[in-house]
Amino acid sequence: MKLLLHEIRHNPLLWLLVFVPIAFVAEHLKPEAHTLLFVLSVFAIVPLAALLSHATEAVAAKTGDAAGGLLNATLGNLTELVIALTALKAGQYLLVKASIAGAIVTNTLFMLGASFLLGGLKFHTQEFNRVSARMQAGLLFLATIALLVPSVLIDVDAHAGSDFTQSLSVGLALLLIVAYALGMLFSLKTHRELFASAAHGADDEHGAPWPIGMALATLAGVTVLVALISEIFVESVQKAAEAFGMTPAFVGFIVVALVGGAAEMASAFSGARKNRLDLSVGIALGSASQIALFVAPVLVLLSYVIGPTPMDLQFWPGAVAMMLIATMTAMFVTVGGRSAWFVGVLVLMVYLIFAMTLYLLPPQVT
Amino acid sequence: MKLLLHEIRHNPLLWLLVFVPIAFVAEHLKPEAHTLLFVLSVFAIVPLAALLSHATEAVAAKTGDAAGGLLNATLGNLTELVIALTALKAGQYLLVKASIAGAIVTNTLFMLGASFLLGGLKFHTQEFNRVSARMQAGLLFLATIALLVPSVLIDVDAHAGSDFTQSLSVGLALLLIVAYALGMLFSLKTHRELFASAAHGADDEHGAPWPIGMALATLAGVTVLVALISEIFVESVQKAAEAFGMTPAFVGFIVVALVGGAAEMASAFSGARKNRLDLSVGIALGSASQIALFVAPVLVLLSYVIGPTPMDLQFWPGAVAMMLIATMTAMFVTVGGRSAWFVGVLVLMVYLIFAMTLYLLPPQVT
Amino acid sequence: MKLLLHEIRHNPLLWLLVFVPIAFVAEHLKPEAHTLLFVLSVFAIVPLAALLSHATEAVAAKTGDAAGGLLNATLGNLTELVIALTALKAGQYLLVKASIAGAIVTNTLFMLGASFLLGGLKFHTQEFNRVSARMQAGLLFLATIALLVPSVLIDVDAHAGSDFTQSLSVGLALLLIVAYALGMLFSLKTHRELFASAAHGADDEHGAPWPIGMALATLAGVTVLVALISEIFVESVQKAAEAFGMTPAFVGFIVVALVGGAAEMASAFSGARKNRLDLSVGIALGSASQIALFVAPVLVLLSYVIGPTPMDLQFWPGAVAMMLIATMTAMFVTVGGRSAWFVGVLVLMVYLIFAMTLYLLPPQVT
Repeated sequence: MKLLLHEIRHNPLLWLLVFVPIAFVAEHLKPEAHTLLFVLSVFAIVPLAALLSHATEAVAAKTGDAAGGLLNATLGNLTELVIALTALKAGQYLLVKASIAGAIVTNTLFMLGASFLLGGLKFHTQEFNRVSARMQAGLLFLATIALLVPSVLIDVDAHAGSDFTQSLSVGLALLLIVAYALGMLFSLKTHRELFASAAHGADDEHGAPWPIGMALATLAGVTVLVALISEIFVESVQKAAEAFGMTPAFVGFIVVALVGGAAEMASAFSGARKNRLDLSVGIALGSASQIALFVAPVLVLLSYVIGPTPMDLQFWPGAVAMMLIATMTAMFVTVGGRSAWFVGVLVLMVYLIFAMTLYLLPPQVT
Repeated sequence: MKLLLHEIRHNPLLWLLVFVPIAFVAEHLKPEAHTLLFVLSVFAIVPLAALLSHATEAVAAKTGDAAGGLLNATLGNLTELVIALTALKAGQYLLVKASIAGAIVTNTLFMLGASFLLGGLKFHTQEFNRVSARMQAGLLFLATIALLVPSVLIDVDAHAGSDFTQSLSVGLALLLIVAYALGMLFSLKTHRELFASAAHGADDEHGAPWPIGMALATLAGVTVLVALISEIFVESVQKAAEAFGMTPAFVGFIVVALVGGAAEMASAFSGARKNRLDLSVGIALGSASQIALFVAPVLVLLSYVIGPTPMDLQFWPGAVAMMLIATMTAMFVTVGGRSAWFVGVLVLMVYLIFAMTLYLLPPQVT
Repeated sequence: MKLLLHEIRHNPLLWLLVFVPIAFVAEHLKPEAHTLLFVLSVFAIVPLAALLSHATEAVAAKTGDAAGGLLNATLGNLTELVIALTALKAGQYLLVKASIAGAIVTNTLFMLGASFLLGGLKFHTQEFNRVSARMQAGLLFLATIALLVPSVLIDVDAHAGSDFTQSLSVGLALLLIVAYALGMLFSLKTHRELFASAAHGADDEHGAPWPIGMALATLAGVTVLVALISEIFVESVQKAAEAFGMTPAFVGFIVVALVGGAAEMASAFSGARKNRLDLSVGIALGSASQIALFVAPVLVLLSYVIGPTPMDLQFWPGAVAMMLIATMTAMFVTVGGRSAWFVGVLVLMVYLIFAMTLYLLPPQVT
């Protein structure tokens, strides 16, 4: 507990934890103040996500290399998963899908691009492990293909019907999970030497190591808190978006993705500033491919258990195009293993183009 | 003849030749047993394709380097060409097009991916000639673009009319054949040193060399047999597909392509297991680009002579998307010239996604 | 003036200047002879473009490195800009857009491919600066994405309406100009050493250096002449196209682009024949990305001032597909930094496919 408090005192991001109780109180007192609740829940989720990520890493560090890597890879996007599950339970499938696509696009373009830019402003050129980057980009490419196949085919022919979409979505979800598991076998076991410099890179940001009991307790407790706050967030987000003049597409793609990924972004940017671009690229692309290969299929499969109706993997064509472009951009900029500030600008520009388009998009399109 | 028998005795694949007479007998006795005829014709085509490929290589080995390479490159997909010609004569243009697209996708994804996987299960990492792979991928990319242009434009505007499609298809067919001829000039003549290690790689699979007379006789005789069996195959395939619960798209894309390419696959996989990935990549990409650049345009041009009506190059949009994705995947995985088992898994996953989608696709879509 | 005359005497391309007065006279005498006026204006624009390009380089050489580079980069496509502005003033937005897309496609495919081919016919293999090529290709990729986003989204949903398209186009235009400015900062200032060998490559084609006064006077005078000839060209082009049996799409994409870029092509091809492929690649990709990142957005913004109605960035889907394919082709062939004649053939084939398609396309499609 003392360690936890020490952690909180030395990490300004965690001071935002004060918004967690405020959000709960506000929800009880003013359940109709959607805009306020939205803002409070955003400020509350960010530090919880940071804590969750620390706790996961602490548990991973204790359980040894392979199991730790596995845990880290599985729980690394726990925040995104919990938010999406809450939206899934509420039957808000458009929000779930927008947040999946948005998290992929945001991690691939914003997190990667800002890391290149921030690192490049400090160092003339930076190098990173291109083998590792290429495998992550390869996984992401595979996942994007899997996600776009149903959308492309349905677009082609509206008669295809929902039975087809449904069984195809379940089949694709199972394929993606198998690919994800084999990818972990490859990077954590059979060919771990190729991924050397990116491993365990995040550890030294912490001070003293957390005892395993505290880490596990934090993991459990914070997950529950994230789930509770997510409910406030999901309930208020649409109404708040209208109040801010934002389209639902912009909220799902950009706002949810930035909120859910804030903790990883902090790590990725700090790595880039320390000239450890391996770490940044690993977090950005790893996180994106994890969402595509693990979070998205898990949501499809869980929708049969907890959702009002099954969810399929059919995305809005614009979302598919953005995911594909984001993946191709990532493949293109990581192929050489070198970076400079302008590479970051190029990647961020693509993200800005998407964000601007979504912001201006009339609501009925998505 | 003794050599031919020796070859047959030592190659278990050729024992399947017994199905050739069985198929002919069955067709006379039970012309309505489509499912049976389909299965028999599949089992009969596979060993014939293997013999054809051996005979072509034997003739190529005798006729010297440049002419041999030319011959090998031209007749390497003779089985696919004969099957497609039979379907063309029967006016089954959808089957012809599906088998062209399917052969490109299957060679690029299944043959390449399985080679990477089989080789990677035996060797930690494998290297291959990236210059050669890149040229093959480049040719394939060009061919895919040529094949998709009419489809994309027709999709855009239905008014364009068939006159336009027809003259565009003939023009593209001529362009593709010119590109194919120049590609052979490049790889067999002006820049042959770049393709060194892939050349003549297949030879040492055979025992004693075949005399030229036997090779030519085998080539001629087996081609006739393939043509006759193909007729049984083309007549029975649609009815049999229904009986097996397979969509026509699945049959054309996956079944025909796997049957027609069985012999090349055997060579490619055996090369990968012997750590000669150059050979495998060369066969897979070379075969795919040969179908796109030579078989497809030849079929378009021949359709004016032997088909009931001229055939164009307009494909179903889903087929175009699959060819484009397959080409991009091949370009991405061959750019580095290195491979490990997981690269094979990634490529095979893309193929599985396509196969699953085609299997589940309601029949009216294609 | 003596220098200018010396320049003209030693550069056969400039002898075409005689067509400038002929075109003006013909326009006064026979304003209805569209085909004649079209041919005369084409022959008149080519030498003017060459003079403009020489004058720009002469001014750039005098004003020092950074400012010179900036000037060269900004005025390098002055001919294309003036022609497009003339079409914009006449409200011919389809021609403006076709000439933008056509200039990108022609520079990327024809200029690059012909340079590779011409160089490759003389030298066995050629090398070029891949860092520089990759950045140009990256800029071009970004620009293509920006140009395709509105088209893709509008295609998806026709209800989106022109307000959305309009504000999105202005926003994208501003983003592109910022990216262009940052790209110049990167290549001329912070990371100029990466682009070393391509810089100032064009200089030694000239004999004696031009005095600054003459260069500036030539720049101003020739720009006015180009503007006047462009008016004849824009007025006659559609009618002449009909007379030649060419579709408007073919004229906008191919003819205008080849005419406007003739001067740069002469430099690029001459560089390739001197084994200075850096220069050729730099001109081809630099020119294409300049049109996408500078000329196109400037035209959108200027359409609010000088056009009858604002112009948006929504292109015909086929034009978007061609720009995307051209960019991907450029990225693919420049990734290795090596070239041989067949690479040029591949790239030119893609261009030929496009040209043939546009030539055959029924007029109502675009």
